Amino acid sequence: MANNVNKTVPSPPFRGPGGIVYGVIGTGAIGGYYGAKLACAGEDVHFLLHSDYEYVKEHGLKVSSVRGDFELPRVNAYRSTADMPACDVVLVCLKSTSNGLLRELLPPLLHKDTIVLMIQNGLGLEADLQEVFPELQIAGGLAFICSNKTGSGEIAHLDYGGLNIGSYSCRDLSRLEEVAAVFNRADIRAKVLDLELARWMKLVWNVPYNGLTVVLNTTTDHLMAHPVSEGLIRDLMLEVIRGANQVGKGRFTIGEEYADKMLEMTRTMTPYSPSMKLDYDNHRPLEISYIYTRPVHEAAEAGFVMKKVQMLQQQLCFLDKGGCHIGKL
Amino acid sequence: MANNVNKTVPSPPFRGPGGIVYGVIGTGAIGGYYGAKLACAGEDVHFLLHSDYEYVKEHGLKVSSVRGDFELPRVNAYRSTADMPACDVVLVCLKSTSNGLLRELLPPLLHKDTIVLMIQNGLGLEADLQEVFPELQIAGGLAFICSNKTGSGEIAHLDYGGLNIGSYSCRDLSRLEEVAAVFNRADIRAKVLDLELARWMKLVWNVPYNGLTVVLNTTTDHLMAHPVSEGLIRDLMLEVIRGANQVGKGRFTIGEEYADKMLEMTRTMTPYSPSMKLDYDNHRPLEISYIYTRPVHEAAEAGFVMKKVQMLQQQLCFLDKGGCHIGKL
Repeated sequence: MANNVNKTVPSPPFRGPGGIVYGVIGTGAIGGYYGAKLACAGEDVHFLLHSDYEYVKEHGLKVSSVRGDFELPRVNAYRSTADMPACDVVLVCLKSTSNGLLRELLPPLLHKDTIVLMIQNGLGLEADLQEVFPELQIAGGLAFICSNKTGSGEIAHLDYGGLNIGSYSCRDLSRLEEVAAVFNRADIRAKVLDLELARWMKLVWNVPYNGLTVVLNTTTDHLMAHPVSEGLIRDLMLEVIRGANQVGKGRFTIGEEYADKMLEMTRTMTPYSPSMKLDYDNHRPLEISYIYTRPVHEAAEAGFVMKKVQMLQQQLCFLDKGGCHIGKL
Repeated sequence: MANNVNKTVPSPPFRGPGGIVYGVIGTGAIGGYYGAKLACAGEDVHFLLHSDYEYVKEHGLKVSSVRGDFELPRVNAYRSTADMPACDVVLVCLKSTSNGLLRELLPPLLHKDTIVLMIQNGLGLEADLQEVFPELQIAGGLAFICSNKTGSGEIAHLDYGGLNIGSYSCRDLSRLEEVAAVFNRADIRAKVLDLELARWMKLVWNVPYNGLTVVLNTTTDHLMAHPVSEGLIRDLMLEVIRGANQVGKGRFTIGEEYADKMLEMTRTMTPYSPSMKLDYDNHRPLEISYIYTRPVHEAAEAGFVMKKVQMLQQQLCFLDKGGCHIGKL
């Protein structure tokens, strides 16, 4: 009976309807969700797992989602990238503090046209990877999602789910549009944007909420409930916007009203502990380097000192058990 | 026997060798220490007590001090200022969050030449009191002391102990010099300084260490042990110095090397939880108003925005269970 069931499912590797082979490095709250969505839509997705390998190999992935719970009972799970097929698109969904691993993890997955999509937060991720792999086509992905890993092979999707992607060094932009189209067919709202602008825009939310929920040991709703902390969040957002505009001079501009938009969005959002708060509470190193240190540095280089953002960076470095982990490759 | 012992001690009120009658409002880590030192030197000191009244009336005050433990077995203790004699000098050693009480507490202690010495931290304390008592002679006191109240009638004196005093509205400055001389005779290193300058100089230490030990849940020695938090402390100190110099334009200047002096002093200091940390840990309201809000406001009025100090103020207001207690009279 069990054999019969297995026979109805094609053996990996197979080509999905999008004709693209996907690899997922980091099958957690982000990689697990997007990978499962793609696989659920019939795409050919291969997941690298670490501590959850045995569990997921046997039980698959479960997503309890505001958009409807779903399961992926059979998962192309791997313990090592050496066992995975070459991929057309690799979704890097590691914590950026682990990006040092990419030097070893990526090579087995690459063919001459592979696109590595770094679905991580912060600035400078692609530049650091490009230094190690000068010929690689790199894109960045910005996940607008509230999701947490709640157990082995279990992901809770609380709110949102969109993905903005942008080229860092893709030779063929139409390929990226094609990837976005596949994501959309898999019920992931994806669009292709200017990467540098998209990364700075994402920081407008990430900088205040990630850091302040850690430093003040709280959640987004409590921060929004007090005028003084909402005021501080606005200050931090405006610093990021001014920093971005100084860096993007002539190339892009973020309007200051974007801060109001982000505040309003957060006010109506499900109370949430951002990923950095979960990392801190679980004694994992904090993603300070790309979310705080690099943006502060880039804005300062362009002539604008983001003082409050810098202070948050300094406070987080003090609290980081990893001793302000640099996370460079 | 007990009666015999009592007969050898003069009954309150009496005049001490300095010929000055002292009142102490707030018999805690600061008021208890300085009042006990004065009384120990034979000065005529009258203590207002609240929750500790019964205990101190019966058992006196005990000070375990780095300069030698001492006891004051018999204390002029009162439950109400209405029962206290008129005083020549009143030491106000309340938490500044309780300064609203002074409106009721002070009048019974005042004669026409009374000097009220506000031994509290921050800016604007004297101005607020003067508004309520326009004719009162007011001075300020800056305690350079590490001391904690460790129990009923028990004070631990860990380090330092000096007191800088300055006139806010004293009509006769020689009277203040006389008070300083009495303090010195009582083994309290006291000197008379420019009050506004002295208050800003004290803030150079108080602003970073009080706030950061609360926000980062730590002690002074841990903050000094990490280059990144020491860097933040230096940033905060330099902001306070620049704020002070902007406010004091033409009247006073603090050299930036004063930050190094304070850092060096703290590096060699006994590990310490500043008073705001103890208040926070004991769920008492925080002295944010005079230590943070007023200095930020005064510097901004003078044209310098102390951004990191302001951020610390915002963070403390969020954490303050008293909801950013204003503490105005």
